[in-house]
Amino acid sequence: MSVITSKTKGVFVIAVTPFRHDGTIDPGSIDSMVDFYFEKGADGLTILGMMGEAPKLTLAESLAVARLTLARASGKPVIVGVSAPGLAALGELSGKVMDMGAAGIMVAPPATLRTDEQIINYYRHVIDTVGAETPVVLQDFPLSTGVQISTKTLGVLFTAHPSIVMLKHEDWPGLQKISDIRRAEAQGQRPVSILCGNAGVFLPEEMQRGADGAMTGFAYPEMMVDVVRLMNAGRVEEAHDVFDAYLPLIRYEQQPGLGLAVRKYLLAKRGAISCAAQRRPGIMLSEPAVNEIERLVARQDRRLTFPA
Amino acid sequence: MSVITSKTKGVFVIAVTPFRHDGTIDPGSIDSMVDFYFEKGADGLTILGMMGEAPKLTLAESLAVARLTLARASGKPVIVGVSAPGLAALGELSGKVMDMGAAGIMVAPPATLRTDEQIINYYRHVIDTVGAETPVVLQDFPLSTGVQISTKTLGVLFTAHPSIVMLKHEDWPGLQKISDIRRAEAQGQRPVSILCGNAGVFLPEEMQRGADGAMTGFAYPEMMVDVVRLMNAGRVEEAHDVFDAYLPLIRYEQQPGLGLAVRKYLLAKRGAISCAAQRRPGIMLSEPAVNEIERLVARQDRRLTFPA
Amino acid sequence: MSVITSKTKGVFVIAVTPFRHDGTIDPGSIDSMVDFYFEKGADGLTILGMMGEAPKLTLAESLAVARLTLARASGKPVIVGVSAPGLAALGELSGKVMDMGAAGIMVAPPATLRTDEQIINYYRHVIDTVGAETPVVLQDFPLSTGVQISTKTLGVLFTAHPSIVMLKHEDWPGLQKISDIRRAEAQGQRPVSILCGNAGVFLPEEMQRGADGAMTGFAYPEMMVDVVRLMNAGRVEEAHDVFDAYLPLIRYEQQPGLGLAVRKYLLAKRGAISCAAQRRPGIMLSEPAVNEIERLVARQDRRLTFPA
Amino acid sequence: MSVITSKTKGVFVIAVTPFRHDGTIDPGSIDSMVDFYFEKGADGLTILGMMGEAPKLTLAESLAVARLTLARASGKPVIVGVSAPGLAALGELSGKVMDMGAAGIMVAPPATLRTDEQIINYYRHVIDTVGAETPVVLQDFPLSTGVQISTKTLGVLFTAHPSIVMLKHEDWPGLQKISDIRRAEAQGQRPVSILCGNAGVFLPEEMQRGADGAMTGFAYPEMMVDVVRLMNAGRVEEAHDVFDAYLPLIRYEQQPGLGLAVRKYLLAKRGAISCAAQRRPGIMLSEPAVNEIERLVARQDRRLTFPA
Repeated sequence: MSVITSKTKGVFVIAVTPFRHDGTIDPGSIDSMVDFYFEKGADGLTILGMMGEAPKLTLAESLAVARLTLARASGKPVIVGVSAPGLAALGELSGKVMDMGAAGIMVAPPATLRTDEQIINYYRHVIDTVGAETPVVLQDFPLSTGVQISTKTLGVLFTAHPSIVMLKHEDWPGLQKISDIRRAEAQGQRPVSILCGNAGVFLPEEMQRGADGAMTGFAYPEMMVDVVRLMNAGRVEEAHDVFDAYLPLIRYEQQPGLGLAVRKYLLAKRGAISCAAQRRPGIMLSEPAVNEIERLVARQDRRLTFPA
Repeated sequence: MSVITSKTKGVFVIAVTPFRHDGTIDPGSIDSMVDFYFEKGADGLTILGMMGEAPKLTLAESLAVARLTLARASGKPVIVGVSAPGLAALGELSGKVMDMGAAGIMVAPPATLRTDEQIINYYRHVIDTVGAETPVVLQDFPLSTGVQISTKTLGVLFTAHPSIVMLKHEDWPGLQKISDIRRAEAQGQRPVSILCGNAGVFLPEEMQRGADGAMTGFAYPEMMVDVVRLMNAGRVEEAHDVFDAYLPLIRYEQQPGLGLAVRKYLLAKRGAISCAAQRRPGIMLSEPAVNEIERLVARQDRRLTFPA
Repeated sequence: MSVITSKTKGVFVIAVTPFRHDGTIDPGSIDSMVDFYFEKGADGLTILGMMGEAPKLTLAESLAVARLTLARASGKPVIVGVSAPGLAALGELSGKVMDMGAAGIMVAPPATLRTDEQIINYYRHVIDTVGAETPVVLQDFPLSTGVQISTKTLGVLFTAHPSIVMLKHEDWPGLQKISDIRRAEAQGQRPVSILCGNAGVFLPEEMQRGADGAMTGFAYPEMMVDVVRLMNAGRVEEAHDVFDAYLPLIRYEQQPGLGLAVRKYLLAKRGAISCAAQRRPGIMLSEPAVNEIERLVARQDRRLTFPA
Repeated sequence: MSVITSKTKGVFVIAVTPFRHDGTIDPGSIDSMVDFYFEKGADGLTILGMMGEAPKLTLAESLAVARLTLARASGKPVIVGVSAPGLAALGELSGKVMDMGAAGIMVAPPATLRTDEQIINYYRHVIDTVGAETPVVLQDFPLSTGVQISTKTLGVLFTAHPSIVMLKHEDWPGLQKISDIRRAEAQGQRPVSILCGNAGVFLPEEMQRGADGAMTGFAYPEMMVDVVRLMNAGRVEEAHDVFDAYLPLIRYEQQPGLGLAVRKYLLAKRGAISCAAQRRPGIMLSEPAVNEIERLVARQDRRLTFPA
């Protein structure tokens, strides 16, 4: 059993939750999806995030998804999203998945938080609830949560809670935030791992600013794997070449709400899952949307075969 | 077992969830609280609402609170709040409490809804999930949810879903909404029961506009009982006299966030529950706040003894 | 010409902007309204606030209202609201009204501010724009602006900017904020004047917590004047007696949006202005609303004649 | 003098407002910028939009910018953004710029609107204020305004107000909205011109769905001109080739807030304006950001010279 630390690097793929057409969980597709992600080079997985349709699951279903994923991951690290409206439910899920062998938990701030003080108090309650021994990923995604956490407040949180070992960075714009955190660390602040989300739409620049890798669910995880590898090797232009080839589709998959339908369509097309269905309420792709995706995939395939 | 209908009238008290000092649920206080509410004249109860700290409970705890309350209520109607981030959890809780004998469920719209169409789609999904045989209370509380539902959209919902039998009305300002709904009903729209929340701060006027009663948790339920009774009897000035005597404390208890601490303090003081503690994160009353409450109670007692 | 300072005390009435039925500004009613407010005991006025329909005026109209009000006030202090989407417009209005003899300006935070840092930066820009010699009232009204300013952030602002001499306090709940600011001042923080808004709905308690007076526009300014005077004299129960007599109407006038129609109806009824019209978009009182107001006024009159 | 109609097609560039380093408006740069945009193939301009720093200008400055731009545009169509907190200011600016020869006005909904009814009422007030003879562009940009307008509500507005001749489309995701509007038009709804914003990040797909062109301010307007021209000619793959070459920089310029600094940096670099300064409060580009932009420009230049 591996746990995440402040030194964790690489690519953690945000996993979808595969459903059958009738809306039930598809265990076979969990297996094939886990295999797919690791075959493409993932270092770990993150399940039950926003793009994993976590709020649509019952507690029992969430635990089943965690159990199946952890079993198939065979000891590779799996982070579990445990965001919940209240601390008791958050703590219950956290305790159970850590007992199963999760590598850590991920917690986004509830939408009601406004002032720095409220944010600081919230994470203090979270750490009290899950225990200081549980590794925590702080998800900083204002576009979705509505909560803005300044770099200074992040510093207060990292200093107060050594168990917050990782930042899932998806502020937008957010490049300067990475630079500012790394500068604070150079001046003595406790370092944390920074993995970047937001569909990877700024991944080359994020790596250049000092990020440790990616945590996002773009349906071509090899993009994240290659960009992170090339950037770590200092091969910046090549990293951009790879990134640019995927960017038209990244952009298309990043559409709020609709993006999950795009992602599942692509994962089903690639054989990672057997069915692209979302549990309701979900968005269906229209015929023009499918045509747009197919065009983008064809163009991407051509470009990756004969790179610019 | 009684269920609510579109003809339900009277006072449904929004029950708190009693905790011990250590944050565990206090079954003995559930019993005494249920007794207290009915002794003061309540016609029914509503549990696991926002002021019942429902989001702070695990699923197992929610079910335990429902079971204990229903048992003690001895067949009197108990509505259960089932609002949840996703439909699966909402449906699971709804099914279980209806099986236990709940009189109906209450559903507030999630904060992400904006357009009329989104609101209409959401309640369609809810009714599909809980089944058209489950009586539903639609909670319209924009101050807390951020969702604004126009009178026209309410009409669309009431027409589409006969199982939405009741409106928990707490828009602010909201008096005209009651008049508008009643006028639409006079022109043929299916009638619904309208019980008013918002700490009762407009109860006399709401009754005059055509409401059927109150659904709120002010720590002196006899206020709601008396005002509703007097208004129904056409004794408008007397209803206002009673209301005015309680208004300084209603106003104090209506403070967002802090209000629950005030309410639990008063319920503990009155012997309805043994401990005023909220589960964390909760707000503590400062010493000046306690002094303010005590002054207001003393003034209220004097005024009720020697009415103006 | 008088300016406000951190020692200013008393009642500043939030003035409405009187319009004729055709939506044009009514200079005669500005005169009669100014006379009315001072006759009822006001110590000063605040014009061009949210309840003064300031955003509905052109710049030229705003300047005309300021000129007429200042002329009629004959040297009594008049604060001018200058909140605007941008600093240039804010600075232009501020400069012009200060030149005319305004006692200070009032600035609410724009709705886009979230983090403490953003709030602090915004007021730094404001002070740079209006000049450090212009007395500033910071309006803290989260219900309307959506911006939450913690007590700590207020302390940072008061310390950084000596020209912020006054807090228009209308957080809700907000009593503890007054206590916390006064405690910080006891420990050395620069004191500011705290005048309370929010229709006066917590005025007795706010005075007890250490406020210096009221800044709100309830159509019976004598309520604020009497409560402030009695509280300052330590006659707490009498202050509450006065307050309680007005509370049913305060509550009615405090309804968001609708409240301004109530206030202007009452001011017209009392002869302070000749016409209750709002400039569009405005809310009209329905017949039931007018009946409700008339009942509340009649009850208030009886109660003030034969106090409880 | 040309005005926009529901048949207007092509590329309207969202113009920046050029300032000198001291924050004053730079008339010389207005001239050179207008020339630049038209030399690159723009069909018209839109000034005083959000990205034109309109809220930072005084009324007199707004009028000066409009006058200078209209003079230099020599009869080519210039749309003027007139969004304002209140109708009087909106109407004043609208009347003055239409008198100067503007081609139409653009109005975004204020952030407070929620229900369909509120949105419909707002635009009714706007049309009443500016007059039914003034051509209006409705800006639909939820990411910035917070207001969500459903396709159905847009249909209500287009049907009620023939003077709303154009939609500035920048919902996200928004492709389906274009398809839905065009389908409604095929079924008899009055057609409108649809020009797409959002930095052009979906321009090829938007054209395919039936848009009439672009209205956005990307610093390389030739991208919009070429993509629109190629799509209109049915040369879809070539349009994508052009688009893909610019996409890495489009993405970078689309960053909220920061994007304007990027845009002005590029316009200054290209000689369109003499100074990249924003009026305060503005965002400065850090050194790493400048390096990122320069790298993206170099890569873009290479790719446009030797296309993939």
